[in-house]
Amino acid sequence: MPDSRDPTGAATVEFDPARPASFPFWTRDVLRWGDTDALGHINNVEFARFFESGRIAYLSAAGVRGIDADDFLLAHLAIDFHAQMHYPGEVRTGTRVIRIGRSSVRFAQALFQDDLCTASGVAVVVMAGRDTGQAKPVPEDMRARLLDPGA
Amino acid sequence: MPDSRDPTGAATVEFDPARPASFPFWTRDVLRWGDTDALGHINNVEFARFFESGRIAYLSAAGVRGIDADDFLLAHLAIDFHAQMHYPGEVRTGTRVIRIGRSSVRFAQALFQDDLCTASGVAVVVMAGRDTGQAKPVPEDMRARLLDPGA
Amino acid sequence: MPDSRDPTGAATVEFDPARPASFPFWTRDVLRWGDTDALGHINNVEFARFFESGRIAYLSAAGVRGIDADDFLLAHLAIDFHAQMHYPGEVRTGTRVIRIGRSSVRFAQALFQDDLCTASGVAVVVMAGRDTGQAKPVPEDMRARLLDPGA
Amino acid sequence: MPDSRDPTGAATVEFDPARPASFPFWTRDVLRWGDTDALGHINNVEFARFFESGRIAYLSAAGVRGIDADDFLLAHLAIDFHAQMHYPGEVRTGTRVIRIGRSSVRFAQALFQDDLCTASGVAVVVMAGRDTGQAKPVPEDMRARLLDPGA
Repeated sequence: MPDSRDPTGAATVEFDPARPASFPFWTRDVLRWGDTDALGHINNVEFARFFESGRIAYLSAAGVRGIDADDFLLAHLAIDFHAQMHYPGEVRTGTRVIRIGRSSVRFAQALFQDDLCTASGVAVVVMAGRDTGQAKPVPEDMRARLLDPGA
Repeated sequence: MPDSRDPTGAATVEFDPARPASFPFWTRDVLRWGDTDALGHINNVEFARFFESGRIAYLSAAGVRGIDADDFLLAHLAIDFHAQMHYPGEVRTGTRVIRIGRSSVRFAQALFQDDLCTASGVAVVVMAGRDTGQAKPVPEDMRARLLDPGA
Repeated sequence: MPDSRDPTGAATVEFDPARPASFPFWTRDVLRWGDTDALGHINNVEFARFFESGRIAYLSAAGVRGIDADDFLLAHLAIDFHAQMHYPGEVRTGTRVIRIGRSSVRFAQALFQDDLCTASGVAVVVMAGRDTGQAKPVPEDMRARLLDPGA
Repeated sequence: MPDSRDPTGAATVEFDPARPASFPFWTRDVLRWGDTDALGHINNVEFARFFESGRIAYLSAAGVRGIDADDFLLAHLAIDFHAQMHYPGEVRTGTRVIRIGRSSVRFAQALFQDDLCTASGVAVVVMAGRDTGQAKPVPEDMRARLLDPGA
């Protein structure tokens, strides 16, 4: 059966990014006064910060950060903003790998303050040589861990 | 002739976001030491910061920020990362409005360090009541200014 | 007996800012990837961010933020940096009011990562009219709450 | 004659940190929308960011950053806040070395928005081994450059 996490193909199964159950991996950030801006809410750019927290922690949990001389570099980021967030409080970030390509890993992510989904989006990181910046294949033995960092 | 900035329709004319000439409006940020991260480059999230600088300045130049009790809120942001940026230096942000919908304004933007296009993307902001957060129509007299903030 | 928290005088009792027991009020921040800089550690300026988190939460707990048209504005900040902090992890911030003057409140604060005191310092905020920016007396009924926000 | 920049002793000559003429070295930052907070002004912590920009640029201009395996680490920072800053605009940071100790360098710094001195302060950095974090003497041939980075 096709599965959205099938490493050999595109995401073919729909999932609802507004449902926490869609995400197997969670991180948590504490909102800071400095995250607010003059509109009185959490600044939009900080949303990208929380997505980043989730991806970095995911890659660390999978044991695939800073392998030898390679890094995953961010190639694409897309965020849909659903609701404003307000200080004080916490934000929980759900992260899921939805596709692994030759050199790339595609994440789906969503942010929640209390039980409200405030943003969802996707991010694509590409494995690259640290010195060259050139894309390199994701090693075979890394793929299983990327799909299930808790395995 | 269809035009990518036709306020009545979608962008139908291609333009190259890697070419500075594609953008009528420019802002400039000075890179800060604090923009770097432990990978030694400018942190990816700061790219979203520079896009934001461009949009806010564009809306200010068009005279359409903080009109009465309405604000433009960010609804969607998508960034393609083309090259790393490094401290020290400056980043120039090109901004262009490519579509105005009933309640929304779509921007194309790109970042340049020296002459290198380091990122490009789109952002959609929606006019919303400050108290309600509900979308409202973009007023007619605001549309011309949004297409040409220098007019 | 003179006491370091005597609102009528200067701090006269020494206390050790490196000891968690010196602080009655605690906040917690989650370190973010974006808090690092190109030296690979948590950027020094973020230390000031964590001190800020502690003060804002303290003033909120005391119920004295945004009273009518007055705000506490930061007038002085001094930080001694004792140890580097590293991602990932959490930082705990201890906060204590050590003196209340006519218009000002002096805080002692310290940061801890795990059990290590990574920084200590003082901050002075001044009550000021929101519109005028001019210093105003700290109201009598606010002083007790400032000394013991949990009372 | 004693001089405030005498590397063998403490600062003994008074200077006025609110006067631009007190500073031989200048940097400039562009204020960002994200520098604001919910009080509507530039967040206080960003002031520390601009001081940092000045110190890093000063050390770079003096050619003394990242020498071999040593770094200057921040040991102390003290800021007096004189006036609020507001977006949009620029901030200019004046930086001056006022004392060089065995392992430490003491800076005086001030921030200006337009012609207004918005903050002044001091910062002490200590030369430390990158691996050990232990203080090391500032090399003799580095002292002259630290006092006059343009020499």
